[in-house]
Amino acid sequence: MNFILKDENAVFYECGYSCDNEFLLCVDGVKYFFTDARYYFEAKSCVNAGVVVLLAQRNLISEVRAFLRKMKPSNLVFNPDELSLSEFNALSKGFKINFKPKANFSRLKRICKSEDEIKILKKASEFGAKCFDEFAKFVRENGEGMSEKELHFNASLIFRQKNELGLSFDPIVAINENAAKAHALPGDKILKKGDLLLLDAGVKFKRYCSDRTRTACFDENFNFSKEQKFKNAKMQEIYEIVKEAQAAAIKVARAGIRACEIDLAARSVIAKAGYEKAFFHSTGHGVGVDIHELPVISARSETLIKEGMVFSVEPGIYLENEFGVRIEDVVVAREGGCEIL
Amino acid sequence: MNFILKDENAVFYECGYSCDNEFLLCVDGVKYFFTDARYYFEAKSCVNAGVVVLLAQRNLISEVRAFLRKMKPSNLVFNPDELSLSEFNALSKGFKINFKPKANFSRLKRICKSEDEIKILKKASEFGAKCFDEFAKFVRENGEGMSEKELHFNASLIFRQKNELGLSFDPIVAINENAAKAHALPGDKILKKGDLLLLDAGVKFKRYCSDRTRTACFDENFNFSKEQKFKNAKMQEIYEIVKEAQAAAIKVARAGIRACEIDLAARSVIAKAGYEKAFFHSTGHGVGVDIHELPVISARSETLIKEGMVFSVEPGIYLENEFGVRIEDVVVAREGGCEIL
Repeated sequence: MNFILKDENAVFYECGYSCDNEFLLCVDGVKYFFTDARYYFEAKSCVNAGVVVLLAQRNLISEVRAFLRKMKPSNLVFNPDELSLSEFNALSKGFKINFKPKANFSRLKRICKSEDEIKILKKASEFGAKCFDEFAKFVRENGEGMSEKELHFNASLIFRQKNELGLSFDPIVAINENAAKAHALPGDKILKKGDLLLLDAGVKFKRYCSDRTRTACFDENFNFSKEQKFKNAKMQEIYEIVKEAQAAAIKVARAGIRACEIDLAARSVIAKAGYEKAFFHSTGHGVGVDIHELPVISARSETLIKEGMVFSVEPGIYLENEFGVRIEDVVVAREGGCEIL
Repeated sequence: MNFILKDENAVFYECGYSCDNEFLLCVDGVKYFFTDARYYFEAKSCVNAGVVVLLAQRNLISEVRAFLRKMKPSNLVFNPDELSLSEFNALSKGFKINFKPKANFSRLKRICKSEDEIKILKKASEFGAKCFDEFAKFVRENGEGMSEKELHFNASLIFRQKNELGLSFDPIVAINENAAKAHALPGDKILKKGDLLLLDAGVKFKRYCSDRTRTACFDENFNFSKEQKFKNAKMQEIYEIVKEAQAAAIKVARAGIRACEIDLAARSVIAKAGYEKAFFHSTGHGVGVDIHELPVISARSETLIKEGMVFSVEPGIYLENEFGVRIEDVVVAREGGCEIL
């Protein structure tokens, strides 16, 4: 398949390198990496063996067009979500080449992870888990009286590990009612004993993401284990439902079932407890070089789960103006079950 | 002019607020801000007076289509660089509305800064300059034996000022031959006495960016002033050429001349010294809510410089496998001259 890619993670997956001004073409089985003078030397020393690095003297699209004029492929697959209207027009105008739009073609290629990728993802998850422990220690010793903003700043610091690791995304650190917003921005709210604290964070190791959420009760024994004792009875009730829902989904997750069946396992626990409407997002998403990739683990996703697919399992219950609970792990699907990374 | 915008900074400029899922429409002089439930309340309390906030129940594009069907504007300007091919197709299909592509229409609106914007940009530059001094002190006291990665991490920390400021972009911290890459990634190279250290960094204050580059010799008196004494004679020679080139460009920059004349002023100093090919990027770029905006200060840019345009002046010389030097300031064009921010 001839194709063109521009997205940094998709390009990295194909050739082992990426930068912020690039195109990757694959024509007749050979990969060509186009970039400008700023990245040319780095690209040459970093791309996988066999990838041809081409220096664009003018703008990248003109170079790619000149190359296509020479190579004359009859068709070229591209992702219409990845190219702007201008880029697509500039790239394709006047060509006889059949530009085939295929949304997600790169993510579909990446949906099952190799054992090497799984090793890296496992390592990323281990680093992420260590950062959870380190942040828990920090909160236990310094958290009382700190604002969400300060907690968030310190979480970002800890998860970066002096820049040895990247962040999969900006961490979510939320206290009580702020945790009821699935997408909470850190505010001025102050952490006090008995509060609920939600942390959703991940690191990048060798470009691969970890992703994890824990919800915990802030007291002198503060930690991010799944066993939590809340002083508030309703928090405890909701916490146990979410924990049970997550365990149910992990229990069914394996190669050979449909993604919607995993979603259903979590959702039916929450529905049975009467909180169906308070779980308003899907149960999970694929994780790889992108923090959100395929498969989608939702009520409508018919994707057949296969060996090596890696995805999050993260049900939640959100009670507006009260609090929210979410518990998340990343798993790899295997025959007969799944393994938490 | 009726228009639709999606880019966060462009939307912020129009209505005083932005988030990561939004469209801004302007129809018959009224501005409409579309977002989802996660941002609706925040948007309502933050947008400028007169902007109508609309809550999208379904996906944003469906809501915008329903709105356009009701309002029936005869035409709508959009930026083809901003919408992906998929988005444009989903938005426009089946409509009689004349969708007028105008690349850069928002940036053209923003090209001349108001005195209020210049005040904020000046403040951003002052904060940025203070961070340069703070980082210089850090390097003087702790830099010897540190890797580029550690230096980069500490630069990011210092420029964030405990999250009081944002970063205009990921800082570039490069030693010797790594500085020859105009966009170097920090590596494991260790800083030692006599090394050349390049720092390109900026902060965001009230959404407006600062941008500055200094190249300096690492020794016991390490600082980021423009007066530098390198132990290596060739470094000193190249440094003085770049410094002279930057000064020459700043000297001619003013309202009433063409952008290419500013570029020529810098480029001819470097060419005369025999390093024309080692200066392979343009002399500068506009700076505002985007770190790169209009005007472009390049050899081919015929843009007439006007009062209130704010742009960087940053010539450089890059010698592969040896070292690179770049010096950058942001200036505002005035009648008769320019002012360094």
